[in-house]
Amino acid sequence: MPRVIIIGGGFGGLYAARALRRVPVDVTIVDRRNHHVFQPLLYQVAMAALSPGDIASPIRWILRRDRHVEVLLGEVDRIDAAARLVHLTDGAQLSYDFLIVAAGATHAYFGHDEWHRFAPGLKTLEDALDIRRRVLLAFERAERETDPEKRRALLTFAIVGGGPTGVELAGALAEIAKQSLARNFRHFDPGSAKIVLIEGGPSLLATFPEKLRRAARHDLERLGVQVRTDTVVTEVVPGSVQARDWQLRAETILWAAGVAASPLGRTLGVPVDRAGRVLVNPDLTIPGQSNVFVIGDLASLNGEDGKPLPGVAQVAIQMGTHAAHNISRAIEGQPLRPFQYHDYGNMATIGRASAVADLHWAQFTGAIGWLAWLFIHLINLIGFRNRLVVLVHWTWAYFTYQRAIRLITGENTTAP
Amino acid sequence: MPRVIIIGGGFGGLYAARALRRVPVDVTIVDRRNHHVFQPLLYQVAMAALSPGDIASPIRWILRRDRHVEVLLGEVDRIDAAARLVHLTDGAQLSYDFLIVAAGATHAYFGHDEWHRFAPGLKTLEDALDIRRRVLLAFERAERETDPEKRRALLTFAIVGGGPTGVELAGALAEIAKQSLARNFRHFDPGSAKIVLIEGGPSLLATFPEKLRRAARHDLERLGVQVRTDTVVTEVVPGSVQARDWQLRAETILWAAGVAASPLGRTLGVPVDRAGRVLVNPDLTIPGQSNVFVIGDLASLNGEDGKPLPGVAQVAIQMGTHAAHNISRAIEGQPLRPFQYHDYGNMATIGRASAVADLHWAQFTGAIGWLAWLFIHLINLIGFRNRLVVLVHWTWAYFTYQRAIRLITGENTTAP
Repeated sequence: MPRVIIIGGGFGGLYAARALRRVPVDVTIVDRRNHHVFQPLLYQVAMAALSPGDIASPIRWILRRDRHVEVLLGEVDRIDAAARLVHLTDGAQLSYDFLIVAAGATHAYFGHDEWHRFAPGLKTLEDALDIRRRVLLAFERAERETDPEKRRALLTFAIVGGGPTGVELAGALAEIAKQSLARNFRHFDPGSAKIVLIEGGPSLLATFPEKLRRAARHDLERLGVQVRTDTVVTEVVPGSVQARDWQLRAETILWAAGVAASPLGRTLGVPVDRAGRVLVNPDLTIPGQSNVFVIGDLASLNGEDGKPLPGVAQVAIQMGTHAAHNISRAIEGQPLRPFQYHDYGNMATIGRASAVADLHWAQFTGAIGWLAWLFIHLINLIGFRNRLVVLVHWTWAYFTYQRAIRLITGENTTAP
Repeated sequence: MPRVIIIGGGFGGLYAARALRRVPVDVTIVDRRNHHVFQPLLYQVAMAALSPGDIASPIRWILRRDRHVEVLLGEVDRIDAAARLVHLTDGAQLSYDFLIVAAGATHAYFGHDEWHRFAPGLKTLEDALDIRRRVLLAFERAERETDPEKRRALLTFAIVGGGPTGVELAGALAEIAKQSLARNFRHFDPGSAKIVLIEGGPSLLATFPEKLRRAARHDLERLGVQVRTDTVVTEVVPGSVQARDWQLRAETILWAAGVAASPLGRTLGVPVDRAGRVLVNPDLTIPGQSNVFVIGDLASLNGEDGKPLPGVAQVAIQMGTHAAHNISRAIEGQPLRPFQYHDYGNMATIGRASAVADLHWAQFTGAIGWLAWLFIHLINLIGFRNRLVVLVHWTWAYFTYQRAIRLITGENTTAP
């Protein structure tokens, strides 16, 4: 039987593997993590509301009933498309008849990779736990700090990037400070914390309709978040973030701006865009290789409106399914079909009973947007147990204003 | 008001802080972690059944309503009893009128600290996540291993120490291999994994009555665990554990033997036992310092039967409460009272519907022991949300035989 290799167990890879269920192929899915992460809720792990296990499941558990799929834990080093080989970093090589590259993207620092240490981004569970540790530790250090200026800096949180992730982090941080930590400290009021959301462009949530952008900003400001648009960050150093004519002392800086595609894309030897995304054909194959598909955040393709498709779960899911169908057609000797994206809408949550949802046929803000957000995310979580546990967490959080998972774990539990 | 310092936010420290509620004192509780861990369920985090957040809660959240208590995140370096000062590693010093030292214990390697890297023990959340990573990674590596002998070693798990922790780890490992991972791999049968429980003494669960010891061994063996008693480990090297006339190739070795008290005990300048435990007076104070109490795993005290009190949660809880009462008496000018331990019994769980419970007035094995174990642990967990979430996890696990939190996280997710 033809062998299909899928690189990456994110949304794209997982849906591709599942869609190959009824196709006569052997599938191998390779990922350097043993688990799939439900990315849309990753910020809730970073913000101490959910546990890693609530939003992540082992890839081989998800695919345990798909006997045609083999799951390998391993890191892909490079792809040799001419020889139809995938090389792993441990020296192993896997040959394929069809290849689906769904290796995703990570955050980028506008060419300043050194900022990474001072301003972590949010892509993996480890990132989320690191951010959680930094945020909780800042409050702990503030409790022991006697110098008012230093305490001020410890209680200032800068979030760079006003897309959905930045908005969600800022809103959650404001709620932590104003509500969850109330009465927990003896030497300062956590409600005095300053949360500043910094966006280089003229508005937050640039991909949303004007009405929802305004609603999001309004709701954030009501929570006490300071929103600075048209502010391009030019320098990040420990304890400070700087723009051209402005600077902010903040011991905690979080990065929610910029995307860099997986370096694997460049090993395919075909053109990539500025962020390293592979310029794919309309049928999701790459130029000159009709058996190699690139999907999800790693693929660069324009939608019907001529604008690039966004790096969201929906695109990856639909591309994964489409690539699988095209493999099925190739095996049957039929021509491949071009990909068409069905955009069901966008959502971003700001806080308790506050979200914006653009479903195209309707737009919701406030509590209704939030209920829509809750519902959509809950039903899309993989695994009944996850859904149940997350529901318990959210219900409890709603009524108590508490964050359940306020743990400082890892190497340094007392020092920054 | 007199100032009481409590070192350690484990069971002893926490119950001491709470019992000081109605005593006219200011309390400061210092811990190097921001969270209290419900130790009796720590092995379930290591065995991928629960998330860290399910069994741990922030100390300042637990004590948020106790306005007389201040919680400090910090590491104690040493105690200067003569000057009534506690020195932190960051240079800060705290003065006290009364001191409660509840710094606990960690695992010991019979003088072979170098074994630590090859055979991790289980005391902190980080330990539990490290063990979880090693166990899950061993199965992942077995899936990619083609050499039968190497695969055999990857699928062999040695647990050193036949006390409650060792028994619980061995039983859980057997269930993971036999049940949870079934159908998850394509190149080997996880049920073929070999789990070996190694105990230096003549029997498992030495502190339990003979009948329960036999029941535990029987239940473990029914799960497929190989039990080796009278086997003193003399050497641990990567991939192998050795006794005088026996050795075992095992890529995963877990340590559940030996206890070393916190080094803080030695800084008090009073006699300690071989494990570093402070020999306390019957009223829990230390010789020559009637305002310094040592409690929990760090204290060495004999019970009414002349045998040393065990290092279990119940002893720590009762000692914490007792120390608080004695501080109250000291403030009122009354004589201190000797500590009396009320032993309500011991429990250890072996697996699904199998546990041993010795309540003194009755002994339970099998399903009834297990229900008793479930009930006692559930009601003793701190926080309603934790109880609810753990109940969901357990119910789900009971009906599906699954382990919910099979995540490989941390630095190395593909390599050992």
